[in-house]
Amino acid sequence: MSDKTSTSAPRIDVAAVGDALLGKWRTERLESRRLAEDPRLHTIPGQTMDEHRERVLEQLGILVENGAIQRAFPSDLGGGDNHGGNIAAFQELVLADPSLQIKSGVQWGLFGAAILHLGTRPHHEKWLPDVMSLKLPGAFAMTEIGHGSDVASIGTTATYDPDTEEFVIHTPFKGAWKEFLGNAALHGQAAVVFAQLITQGVNHGVHAFFVPIRTAERELLPGVGSEDDGVKGGLNGIDNGRLHFDQVRIPRTNLLNRYGDVAADGTYSSAIESPGRRFFTMIGTLVQGRVSLDGSAVRAMQAALTIAIKYGAERRQFPGASGRETVLLDYGQHQRRLLPRLAETYAMTFADDRLLTVFDEVFSGARDTDENREDLETLAAALKPLSTWAALDTLQEAREATGGAGFMAKNRLTGLRADLDIYVTFEGDNNVLLQLVGKRLLTDYAAQFKPGDRAAIAKAAAAQLGDRVSRFGLRQVGQSIADLGQIARSVESLRTTDAQRALLTDRVETMVAEIALALREATKNVPKGDKRAKAIAGEDAFNAQQHKLIEAARAHAELLQWEAFTEGIEQVADAGSRQVLTWLRDLFGLGLIEKHAAWYLVQGRISGQRAEAVTAYIDRLIGRLRPYAVDLVDAFGLTPGLLRAEIATGIEAERQEEAHAYVEAEKAAGTWPIHEKELRAREKERAKAKQPA
Amino acid sequence: MSDKTSTSAPRIDVAAVGDALLGKWRTERLESRRLAEDPRLHTIPGQTMDEHRERVLEQLGILVENGAIQRAFPSDLGGGDNHGGNIAAFQELVLADPSLQIKSGVQWGLFGAAILHLGTRPHHEKWLPDVMSLKLPGAFAMTEIGHGSDVASIGTTATYDPDTEEFVIHTPFKGAWKEFLGNAALHGQAAVVFAQLITQGVNHGVHAFFVPIRTAERELLPGVGSEDDGVKGGLNGIDNGRLHFDQVRIPRTNLLNRYGDVAADGTYSSAIESPGRRFFTMIGTLVQGRVSLDGSAVRAMQAALTIAIKYGAERRQFPGASGRETVLLDYGQHQRRLLPRLAETYAMTFADDRLLTVFDEVFSGARDTDENREDLETLAAALKPLSTWAALDTLQEAREATGGAGFMAKNRLTGLRADLDIYVTFEGDNNVLLQLVGKRLLTDYAAQFKPGDRAAIAKAAAAQLGDRVSRFGLRQVGQSIADLGQIARSVESLRTTDAQRALLTDRVETMVAEIALALREATKNVPKGDKRAKAIAGEDAFNAQQHKLIEAARAHAELLQWEAFTEGIEQVADAGSRQVLTWLRDLFGLGLIEKHAAWYLVQGRISGQRAEAVTAYIDRLIGRLRPYAVDLVDAFGLTPGLLRAEIATGIEAERQEEAHAYVEAEKAAGTWPIHEKELRAREKERAKAKQPA
Repeated sequence: MSDKTSTSAPRIDVAAVGDALLGKWRTERLESRRLAEDPRLHTIPGQTMDEHRERVLEQLGILVENGAIQRAFPSDLGGGDNHGGNIAAFQELVLADPSLQIKSGVQWGLFGAAILHLGTRPHHEKWLPDVMSLKLPGAFAMTEIGHGSDVASIGTTATYDPDTEEFVIHTPFKGAWKEFLGNAALHGQAAVVFAQLITQGVNHGVHAFFVPIRTAERELLPGVGSEDDGVKGGLNGIDNGRLHFDQVRIPRTNLLNRYGDVAADGTYSSAIESPGRRFFTMIGTLVQGRVSLDGSAVRAMQAALTIAIKYGAERRQFPGASGRETVLLDYGQHQRRLLPRLAETYAMTFADDRLLTVFDEVFSGARDTDENREDLETLAAALKPLSTWAALDTLQEAREATGGAGFMAKNRLTGLRADLDIYVTFEGDNNVLLQLVGKRLLTDYAAQFKPGDRAAIAKAAAAQLGDRVSRFGLRQVGQSIADLGQIARSVESLRTTDAQRALLTDRVETMVAEIALALREATKNVPKGDKRAKAIAGEDAFNAQQHKLIEAARAHAELLQWEAFTEGIEQVADAGSRQVLTWLRDLFGLGLIEKHAAWYLVQGRISGQRAEAVTAYIDRLIGRLRPYAVDLVDAFGLTPGLLRAEIATGIEAERQEEAHAYVEAEKAAGTWPIHEKELRAREKERAKAKQPA
Repeated sequence: MSDKTSTSAPRIDVAAVGDALLGKWRTERLESRRLAEDPRLHTIPGQTMDEHRERVLEQLGILVENGAIQRAFPSDLGGGDNHGGNIAAFQELVLADPSLQIKSGVQWGLFGAAILHLGTRPHHEKWLPDVMSLKLPGAFAMTEIGHGSDVASIGTTATYDPDTEEFVIHTPFKGAWKEFLGNAALHGQAAVVFAQLITQGVNHGVHAFFVPIRTAERELLPGVGSEDDGVKGGLNGIDNGRLHFDQVRIPRTNLLNRYGDVAADGTYSSAIESPGRRFFTMIGTLVQGRVSLDGSAVRAMQAALTIAIKYGAERRQFPGASGRETVLLDYGQHQRRLLPRLAETYAMTFADDRLLTVFDEVFSGARDTDENREDLETLAAALKPLSTWAALDTLQEAREATGGAGFMAKNRLTGLRADLDIYVTFEGDNNVLLQLVGKRLLTDYAAQFKPGDRAAIAKAAAAQLGDRVSRFGLRQVGQSIADLGQIARSVESLRTTDAQRALLTDRVETMVAEIALALREATKNVPKGDKRAKAIAGEDAFNAQQHKLIEAARAHAELLQWEAFTEGIEQVADAGSRQVLTWLRDLFGLGLIEKHAAWYLVQGRISGQRAEAVTAYIDRLIGRLRPYAVDLVDAFGLTPGLLRAEIATGIEAERQEEAHAYVEAEKAAGTWPIHEKELRAREKERAKAKQPA
């Protein structure tokens, strides 16, 4: 409970809020946190890359010993068939060491999961036990130096040779070298290699193959080449490297053949007829990487804010009118820097739990439909970019808000930031992911109309925009005038859940409609039948809208987060806590409206007065939330063993008290020297008193 | 010359633009760049902290050998009396290794400069030659763990003992430990220690003292304690550490006595009567740190954009309608990510040259007036925050725009970002600096009125705001209606230099007036004579406005940058280059208006249509500037030896060409396998052809 709140103010039940934040996989999260407190799993700042890499390999062994990695695997092979719990536990490991986390993600979440999801029973039985025990460390060889986001265009080939019943894995040029692969530089003994499957003269597109690359003694196998990526901007406990293949032969049965197979005679078969759908189905099984990163980023944000807010609530700087120095968190600017990010972290925590739920429903088989898979992919592609970017932003703001202390490795913030940097571009570049979401929004928008009836799209969009124009021209004028002097009332209406939802939803819908219309307009004058001209015009039009489309996808993701926060509050029974969380949700929702105020103003959705009222109300909310700031980070439940930041231990308060006590004692003893300023002030007053009245 | 421009498009003279960017201290910059190309001065990624620290110490010796550090010192002691040139040369060193740069900054720009500017002739003669030769490495002991930004409140004391004619330097409590000091952990043999000067029972405020701390053999002297700060988020080539003093005695003459002195009998004297002004005068001599960081940040931005734009102009990803994969820099989103930052970098480059000019005028004595010193401090406090923040943002965007490759240490971006992180909070925390600027803006605003006539301020501000309300209520309505369908015309007017200036200036003035009014309103009802109530009300009111004041300061800095860019263009004679630079300046100016569109809309300065037109015109500008992107970064003149980023060497284009040639050769040879998609498409067409018409 905060001791700064007055008796009439609501009280927050930290434990209840904490439970809501832990979400559905509370048990797995707490188990994983206990493990993450083990000092053997912690980063040692300043270790050399070589030492760090070996240490992380050992740490993976500790995870195995502690049964921390088996959850997602089949129960008859020693796993737990617990997909949501597996990701939840994985996410918490970020606070032990992101290198350890990501290396374990490479081993079990990518290499192992590819065998599990793209392979079939014989593959599972043959390799998964050794993958789980770490007897078989492996790499996930998808990305090439020439092709990152565009996996469909990779250059590595797997050509079937019916004479020997083997696939020949080959790297035809330098751009096809597999690149940035964890476990590739040192530890990997095999790799799941993505390559163009060629048989009987036909390229059937990208498939995954199990390819041995090294002996247990770390010797490369014949035909396999590897180079070390060396030092990186972070995650230096992982041995990232390159792999290339010179006509390396593997048995036919090493094709992970769940979605496509080659018979002994070279005949290709697949249950999915369309090569495009087949490719996306295969790639779709790898969505767990994005789901994992989303919640990992959120945990890092929780840690960053716990550190910065605890320190900010103790640290004093510059003399205040109260007679003592002012506490940092009592400064308006300091509150503006940290509290909106706290609201965002809550929203993202709840959103991640929702994402995990959808993920678990699909992967457990409980609701494994094509539609749910597609929804899951869109949801992950929407949330992962925003949370990974927000993590970098929050870690940086926390670093700056704690000044020079924040720059010291022992206070964790810079190390986490360096390691998490790559989260924004791996497992899907954030901009590319948001574009995927945007395309899905456009598809869904078009699906409201008859197939191919693009004229109807244009009509509907125009109607929506026509509405806007009239709003802008006339309705807004009316509102502006009516609003004058009624700021209080207008805020009142924006404070409601429904009003926030309406504004956030409207923005997504209007943006998508505008883009759909623009795309339609751009190609309508191309002569029918001129395919190439149409393709070029379509590409140019899309390119002109790309930035807007990505912004629309971002707006969609923000709405999802806001909805998740709103639902999350429902899980808390305690009335006081609900009140405080509702303020925090309002701060998040109105913060979004403030951030996008220009759009709302241009579209005539809010008046200038209302926009100003939003800012004024945000200021009030921030002041109201200030006394709960420490409680709200305490609810994250991050123990000292997880935080491990000196400045979050109370050391600053101790120093302040010692200094204060020293000065008080000197003053009491009469040994505190008078300041020249005070002396001059006294002299002035004495001179004044001497003057005749 | 760009080969993408049509014959009618302007051509850019890269060399002429490059000269304008090098600015007034071209010679010194080029000298320093040549030195920065020396491999002995380069970062070795992955070095241990201990190795890196010793390497950087050696690098400082190389700077001395090359006569690279003497410029700012008096010519009769072997210096060059060249203050602007000294900083210009220093700024370029960031591309060798920021650790080397900042350690040299500690030695010569802080430790040496404090002796120079706070000491007097005997100090200069006694210590500066050894400081310059590095025989005497030293620390600058100002910051304490308990007091960073608030230097006036530091706890270290220097108490004069007339019996022995010595000062006693003492750390009374833990919060007074000197902290985060370069050269303190290992190499420093002396320190300039800032401490409260106490003599005859009076504290005369913070003064600087020369205190020996270690022998040449790195043994701490009696009474001096030191701890190592250990690993940091960056700059690990610098031995940052703590210092504390247990009644350490130094001769009276070790007080750096330019602005305040103590006679043998303990009598204090100073030419500056007010202790407050005296303090700010002393601190003001240290402004060169901020000036140095401003331009250093800009050079890092130049490097980041050179790397990202060169790579983006070569890298291709995803098949395009043209038949080949699309070049990254041809994507709308990629342009939106990089080109506005390029415009900002140009603005900041020109602004830094202007700052250096003012700095040189003051420090060379050419125009050393109180007013110019104050202007210099405000200018530095305005520019340094924006450029150091922009550097982090730009380095990060460049990192993300280059994907996984950007995360590799060999491509420089992550290392520079980690090292430059601390630039945003050292030599003045960015938020604290902007607050200083904001306070100066308020003072200047109040100075328009009679001293103490706060009612006049209120009246003037109210008039300005009244104008706004009427604009919003009526004038804007008129404009909105008039604007309908006249987007082209409204953009036309915003494109002019005068319109951009008017909008940017208006924002600063209006924000300041609003804050001044709010501060006045908040305290006007406090009963006269109740000093404490008035202080508290004033503090609360200021705190409520703090965020806005900082935003106003930022707006002021943006205006300064825009003005500098506009003036910078005047230095380029070539018409084509001027045209392109004007587009780039427009992108910067209109980008600011787009960023702050909500403010302009709320204030009724622009209509919704005009705001949309600004965005549309920005999109056009970006498309227009795309063909010049590589030329515009080439104009920075950063050689391969300065960039040292593999991805900026053309390696990507080589890989793309090799892959392309391979595929073409296979196709020509008939050995390129047909893709299943193509096969299916052909089958479909064949089936169609077979159907009866």
